[in-house]
Amino acid sequence: MIIDCHGHYTGAPAEHGRFREAQLSALADHRPAPDPGVIPDDVIRESIEKNQLRVLRERGADLMLFSPQASSMAHHVPDADMARSWAAASNDLVARVVSLYPESFAPVCQLPQTPEGSLDQVVAELRRCVGMGFVGCNLNPDPSGGHWTLPPLTDPLWFPLYEALVELDVPAMVHVSSSCNPAFHALGAHYLNADTAAFMQLLEGDLFSRFPTLRFVIPHGGGAVPYHWGRYRGLSDRMAWQEPSRLLENVFFDTCVYHQPGIDLLTSVIPAENLLFASEMLGAVRGGDPETGVEWDDTLQYVERSSLTDAQRRLVLEGNARRVYPRLDAQLTAAGRLAS
Amino acid sequence: MIIDCHGHYTGAPAEHGRFREAQLSALADHRPAPDPGVIPDDVIRESIEKNQLRVLRERGADLMLFSPQASSMAHHVPDADMARSWAAASNDLVARVVSLYPESFAPVCQLPQTPEGSLDQVVAELRRCVGMGFVGCNLNPDPSGGHWTLPPLTDPLWFPLYEALVELDVPAMVHVSSSCNPAFHALGAHYLNADTAAFMQLLEGDLFSRFPTLRFVIPHGGGAVPYHWGRYRGLSDRMAWQEPSRLLENVFFDTCVYHQPGIDLLTSVIPAENLLFASEMLGAVRGGDPETGVEWDDTLQYVERSSLTDAQRRLVLEGNARRVYPRLDAQLTAAGRLAS
Repeated sequence: MIIDCHGHYTGAPAEHGRFREAQLSALADHRPAPDPGVIPDDVIRESIEKNQLRVLRERGADLMLFSPQASSMAHHVPDADMARSWAAASNDLVARVVSLYPESFAPVCQLPQTPEGSLDQVVAELRRCVGMGFVGCNLNPDPSGGHWTLPPLTDPLWFPLYEALVELDVPAMVHVSSSCNPAFHALGAHYLNADTAAFMQLLEGDLFSRFPTLRFVIPHGGGAVPYHWGRYRGLSDRMAWQEPSRLLENVFFDTCVYHQPGIDLLTSVIPAENLLFASEMLGAVRGGDPETGVEWDDTLQYVERSSLTDAQRRLVLEGNARRVYPRLDAQLTAAGRLAS
Repeated sequence: MIIDCHGHYTGAPAEHGRFREAQLSALADHRPAPDPGVIPDDVIRESIEKNQLRVLRERGADLMLFSPQASSMAHHVPDADMARSWAAASNDLVARVVSLYPESFAPVCQLPQTPEGSLDQVVAELRRCVGMGFVGCNLNPDPSGGHWTLPPLTDPLWFPLYEALVELDVPAMVHVSSSCNPAFHALGAHYLNADTAAFMQLLEGDLFSRFPTLRFVIPHGGGAVPYHWGRYRGLSDRMAWQEPSRLLENVFFDTCVYHQPGIDLLTSVIPAENLLFASEMLGAVRGGDPETGVEWDDTLQYVERSSLTDAQRRLVLEGNARRVYPRLDAQLTAAGRLAS
């Protein structure tokens, strides 16, 4: 089977957006927070069937790891209660999608992070979601939204979350949300820069000696990292850091790189064991390359045309995701969907 | 001939560092600023001959565009007077190097930027340096040092500098300095992220309609940009921005990518007309790859092994630099060093 490890609920029903607006205006007016209300199944079905489910089927993928819209996580809003209820409503909606299409989607949660970095309610929401069957989470290394006010991911501030991730055996995708900094366009700079910064933080630190089973997926093909793999190897040598390849026991990259030369570089530089197929459809890019006719985010085509062997491609398309997300593997196995 | 468009005076004499320390302590103690003093020729010769000049000769390059050490520009220090005298001393020292080795180095200046972004003294120092024979400058898009407090490079705040650059026909390399933000390692994250952010700012804006002859060189192989070229093409299509290739009339990338697959991607994705050979030696990485025996920053080897045609390689190694830096071309031509 083909598992797409990176999809967000872009195109969520307008009701969900209206709930968010009501939350924000209640906060601004010091009124009590609203309830999310219940979105009918039909509305959810329509939003999914014409978007992610349609594309999943058209392209021949089987399952997508599905989380709330990344740019809407909005961790920069400092109100902790609102962050909690917004994450809960967004995660509950993802759970509804999965309950309607359990064969096509597996749930990944948004964490109720806030700029000051407190993790109590983050861990609580992670536990709640994993209890509902979620198999992973999105971790924002910069809840300030482009001001980067928190310490690196290797700082003890983050350890309570890592302890829970290790205990629950759940990986985190390192994924920022919207940018509040005019210097960084969210989709064209902030996302990629966060991927690069996160990898560099992990390279300079020693996090995985303390948490040897902690696993991070760095999206968007690892930002700038594979393109500059020689730079990281050379820097590590000069600075007496660990070898970058040491990180690959705990760090994985997705394949959200939207052209063939990028995927060719990624697959030639990073071991196949560390690559997880993903498209992030419907995400940053829509439509197709007029020169090739390939839809930009149809990364399956790039992966199929790369020089991966058949065995490596099976790892990238399925095996690695089942290994990195063991709760997904357990769910699939219980449903009789054994690893191919 | 082979022109390396990106070198900094790493390994500058200790006297220069002591002057900087004296400046900083005078500022802290509210004492009058010190004078830089005069560093003897022999001291400068030793610092250059055992470092950049040695490597330039060993590797068979002919000329390096040479500027003050990037990580020491320290634009984050808010004192404008100190920024001015530090830039002047650093630029004067580069001019000394060039006067001692005029066949091997051409000067590029540091600008006395400060976090609040005022450009009066920046333009003045640019004019002073160009008057001394400098052929380019380094422009820091984030003088705050990792906090990104200034508006994008497309903002009118920057226009007085662009007007001077256009008038003087001098390009700017977009290059940040040290990082004051613990989230960003300078060499492993801040530099690359700045390259990516700067390109994205230019893509979203419309700067070159206003300044059609303004030219930027984005170092470190363009950060993440060539690796994600399909993302930028797709994003531009979706957002109704200009085509990324439109920027290539004004934006150039250097070849500071320290492994063969990275250079192969760069040369396959970006037109040869937009690539300027560079190594940034002695810079972020030192030493060599134990697997290949190639020194990490010996980018000439990667360029030689890329699939560029002979004519394209001549552009990358020389022709483009002479075109992008016309004052360099004029100096070389006046010295009888005609384009090959």
